[in-house]
Amino acid sequence: MTMGYTGRILRIDLSRREIWQEETDEVFRRRYLGGWGFIAYYLLKEMPPDADPLGPENLLIFATGPVTGAPISGSGRHTVGAKSPLTGGFGASEAGGFWGTELKRAGFDALIIQGKASSPVYLWIHDGEAEIRDAKHLWGKTTAEVQDFIVRELGDEKVRIAQIGPAGENLVRYACITHDLRHFAGRCGLGAVMGSKNLRAIAVRGSKRVEVADPEKLASIRRWLSENDEALLAGLRYGGTAGGVPYLNASGGMPTRNFLQGHFEYAEEISGQKMAETILVDRGSCYACIARCKRVVEISEGPYRVDPAYGGPEYETVAALGSLCGVGNLHAIAKANELCAAYGLDTISAGVAIAFALECGEKGLLESGEVELRFGNPDTVLKLLEKIAFRQGLGDLLAEGVKRAAACLGAKAQKLAPEVKGQEIPMHEPRFKHGLGLGYAVSPTGADHIHNIHDDAYVKETRSGFKRARALGILEPLPRNDLSPRKVRLFVYELLWRTLPNMLGLCIFLPYDKHQVRDIVQAVTGWDVSIWELMKASQRVHTLARVFNLKAGLSPADDYLPERFFQPFTDGPLAGEAVNREAFHKALNLFYRMMGWDPQTGMPAEHLFDELDISWAR
Amino acid sequence: MTMGYTGRILRIDLSRREIWQEETDEVFRRRYLGGWGFIAYYLLKEMPPDADPLGPENLLIFATGPVTGAPISGSGRHTVGAKSPLTGGFGASEAGGFWGTELKRAGFDALIIQGKASSPVYLWIHDGEAEIRDAKHLWGKTTAEVQDFIVRELGDEKVRIAQIGPAGENLVRYACITHDLRHFAGRCGLGAVMGSKNLRAIAVRGSKRVEVADPEKLASIRRWLSENDEALLAGLRYGGTAGGVPYLNASGGMPTRNFLQGHFEYAEEISGQKMAETILVDRGSCYACIARCKRVVEISEGPYRVDPAYGGPEYETVAALGSLCGVGNLHAIAKANELCAAYGLDTISAGVAIAFALECGEKGLLESGEVELRFGNPDTVLKLLEKIAFRQGLGDLLAEGVKRAAACLGAKAQKLAPEVKGQEIPMHEPRFKHGLGLGYAVSPTGADHIHNIHDDAYVKETRSGFKRARALGILEPLPRNDLSPRKVRLFVYELLWRTLPNMLGLCIFLPYDKHQVRDIVQAVTGWDVSIWELMKASQRVHTLARVFNLKAGLSPADDYLPERFFQPFTDGPLAGEAVNREAFHKALNLFYRMMGWDPQTGMPAEHLFDELDISWAR
Repeated sequence: MTMGYTGRILRIDLSRREIWQEETDEVFRRRYLGGWGFIAYYLLKEMPPDADPLGPENLLIFATGPVTGAPISGSGRHTVGAKSPLTGGFGASEAGGFWGTELKRAGFDALIIQGKASSPVYLWIHDGEAEIRDAKHLWGKTTAEVQDFIVRELGDEKVRIAQIGPAGENLVRYACITHDLRHFAGRCGLGAVMGSKNLRAIAVRGSKRVEVADPEKLASIRRWLSENDEALLAGLRYGGTAGGVPYLNASGGMPTRNFLQGHFEYAEEISGQKMAETILVDRGSCYACIARCKRVVEISEGPYRVDPAYGGPEYETVAALGSLCGVGNLHAIAKANELCAAYGLDTISAGVAIAFALECGEKGLLESGEVELRFGNPDTVLKLLEKIAFRQGLGDLLAEGVKRAAACLGAKAQKLAPEVKGQEIPMHEPRFKHGLGLGYAVSPTGADHIHNIHDDAYVKETRSGFKRARALGILEPLPRNDLSPRKVRLFVYELLWRTLPNMLGLCIFLPYDKHQVRDIVQAVTGWDVSIWELMKASQRVHTLARVFNLKAGLSPADDYLPERFFQPFTDGPLAGEAVNREAFHKALNLFYRMMGWDPQTGMPAEHLFDELDISWAR
Repeated sequence: MTMGYTGRILRIDLSRREIWQEETDEVFRRRYLGGWGFIAYYLLKEMPPDADPLGPENLLIFATGPVTGAPISGSGRHTVGAKSPLTGGFGASEAGGFWGTELKRAGFDALIIQGKASSPVYLWIHDGEAEIRDAKHLWGKTTAEVQDFIVRELGDEKVRIAQIGPAGENLVRYACITHDLRHFAGRCGLGAVMGSKNLRAIAVRGSKRVEVADPEKLASIRRWLSENDEALLAGLRYGGTAGGVPYLNASGGMPTRNFLQGHFEYAEEISGQKMAETILVDRGSCYACIARCKRVVEISEGPYRVDPAYGGPEYETVAALGSLCGVGNLHAIAKANELCAAYGLDTISAGVAIAFALECGEKGLLESGEVELRFGNPDTVLKLLEKIAFRQGLGDLLAEGVKRAAACLGAKAQKLAPEVKGQEIPMHEPRFKHGLGLGYAVSPTGADHIHNIHDDAYVKETRSGFKRARALGILEPLPRNDLSPRKVRLFVYELLWRTLPNMLGLCIFLPYDKHQVRDIVQAVTGWDVSIWELMKASQRVHTLARVFNLKAGLSPADDYLPERFFQPFTDGPLAGEAVNREAFHKALNLFYRMMGWDPQTGMPAEHLFDELDISWAR
């Protein structure tokens, strides 16, 4: 058995109530690694390409990577995947915490769920065993209620629970999957897929150790991180992911009022620093991680009381439910975050859906008797979250996601919908980071910030992004607002690199350089992998995901960037700046070529299937 | 200054007797590395593509790599390059020894010579200085005579001398360049280029140290090699490169009688083992190397007296001037080797030219009043070497190389000429190693064994080739006689990898795995290079060399394999085995695709110039 893996995949057919196990071989494991790799493989290999994302044919896959659960900071990650009900294509989303590690400790690298239970159920997986249990009594409850209930029912406080909330039950297209209330596989509407299967939760408990091939080598990287803890991690630990808000805002890259602006007058009020000074009561962690970047906030009085059980808002949440809706009240944002966690809503898509509705309201394209459709009203945001989760009134429309909602509202509204392939744009501004716009356009999952190349990280020799890109042969810094062929090359290389954490089960926030990531994989698995092999594994999964999307009916026409980003900002530090349309389309074309894909059809070239050793996927 | 480099290139125009220096910058050094990289850059950038290889416009380039001269076994290598008078395309050939290290110690990473001296000259390069000196008195002399003369004239026993012999003076198209009498840049006819410039020798002496960035890291690899010396190097040290003869012969892969056979009845008599038991008097080395794979032989009596000053025959020589000519007399082979060294002839091309003539003689396509044109007569071989070097009689025809000679002899003879692009096939049999046939066809330098992928090294999990290929993601062993898409992928990856030593200045015979090679580059230069960056650097130089060849008039039609290899062996261990024509052409097509080149035109795709950061080369 390869170290770092269990070598087993748990299969469950909810329609037939069948449970079985599959063994993987070492070549399979090394070729696909895990996470995105396993998901792309199984979706393409087993699922009819025209399967309804919310039908029983969809596969819902929870996949760890080789690093998941290894004793090293950043290893607490796993990926959930399925055909996305937002995009109709390849869907995948990562979560931190402890659940992935626990799945491995229970004896499985991945869990693949197909079919649909005839009534609500939950899964109980423990040390190589699995059972399907009744969950009718859990339906309709908040995630915290269900967490408590399952813990009590199983009589084990240490059980780890992945679950949906009412939003997933109600098939909100951007319902998320939460793990132990605080760790979210937020994007791509995977909570709706889980809901469509009548599966409310998956409880996991295991007692095995995740064995690593070279503990001493792993320990040396661990020591390096500990010894440089203050220099490398203090910012993230103190400010959390929202610690970058002041910088982003000063740069003009803070998504504000449905992307109409890049600068928010109340940014300081909603920053990670402000959170740390006010409502922060603890810093949470994931398995084995010393970064402690997760937030735990509590508000015990006033209109926005917040239960610390749900943790606290990340940067994406602060921006999506804050500046993007014009809301500068951190307490209200924390409350909105709690609602999303309790109901199982992706905070990004939910925030964008609301911001879109607010702009439509301000522009007279949408009316509501229920709430005031104006930017800046926190109570509108909170009310709409409730309505979305339970598909009430306007919430029922917004629960479909901005693309479908805009289609109902007409052409003028469609121009205001910030989405790619039906997935809402996350909280990074393409007019600030121009390469990122390309990332939104081409990501197989729709607009996704895992493909966020931080263009501003490559502008100087001294910037960490540039320093780390050198290992790939990127030898000269590049301007932020550049879409030249050199930027496309940087983008392709960094895209391939940045997909790897989602295959390996490693957090992208840890400050490991590329050689250290390679060393971690080698230390865990014992494989003599190179960065070449890892980059090619990433190209492999991108190619598989592209083929899946093509078979599912997507085409290069779906690789777009919303019109708004081609229009200049009218105020703020980036006033006058827009993505250059011609440069963008040239860059898009060059991206296809560099990936080995046909710019017209999107199809990977014949030889690529051979080079990537995936001839089965033709 | 990057460690491992001097940062300076010495330029000499012999026509105008001008000497100047150029500085390189770090991006240039890291992008092109050295050796092949520097040569491809300058040939393509500066030379008219239609330049006559034997005219003053040709550039003759001596280029070290970052590793050249570093204190680590295998670092005694440099590359010589020019437009080849054999192929009319990109020419490059490596040599070991001490000369490359000395050039660096004298303050230069590379030396670029253009123009033509009005009368014979030699160069004297010493500690940052260079002068052009008269060499009329050296013209026509053997290499040993010239070596002695220059040492005496300069009054320095430690001077290192690169030179041509009479063969180079007489523009034999496969004249070589020898270094200190024993270390040869044999292939591509670079000695003729040097001769065409009236340049007989280049003497170098320097006192600088080659500084390395991380001496401790380099020392740890050195220690690893020392500690495993016996296990890793004993075979090479005892048998030399000809130690593999018994294995090759037993496998049916021993080039015999102009490639008519793959098995030689006197193979044991000409093996490295036999040499060690009989005529070997010492084992030579290159700079800093503990392998000691070089031979020094001496024969003090009998018809074939051999002077140990010239070292002794390598495997290629033993086969080309031995089995390929049907000669099983090791003494005669050693004598032939001495003649080639004294006259400056490439032993491979010379042996093939003679073997071709012998077969033509046996088949009645060629007659000679001077020698007996039959396989197996050592005196014919020795006489023809003399005649070739001095372009006398039949030797004048054979001095043109087998392609041009066969064209004079007619269509029947052309079918017997073992060459690709005009360069003679080296001593590795494509019917034994099928991927190698592809390597001969596509090498930019014509048939070249640096592109020898040892297919038999990848057939089992336990074989070293396969073990080391894993680092590139080659996860399953492949049959020797296979040209499937998987073999093509292996071929492309290993081709890119195996070109790197010729860019780095590192010997391909040392048993470093791919990570160790990367570590050596990192330790020497201080760069955080990855195997990805190195592989892409190799793809860059292959693409530049391809563009150079296209501009020089070559086309995909020049990427062929001689008809002979598509015909089955009629006897020996591989009786009945041939390269499959259809599989070969499919593999060739797929190779182009995987390299990003158009199979019809051979032209690299537009996007590749961007991806490889060589848009200047369009």
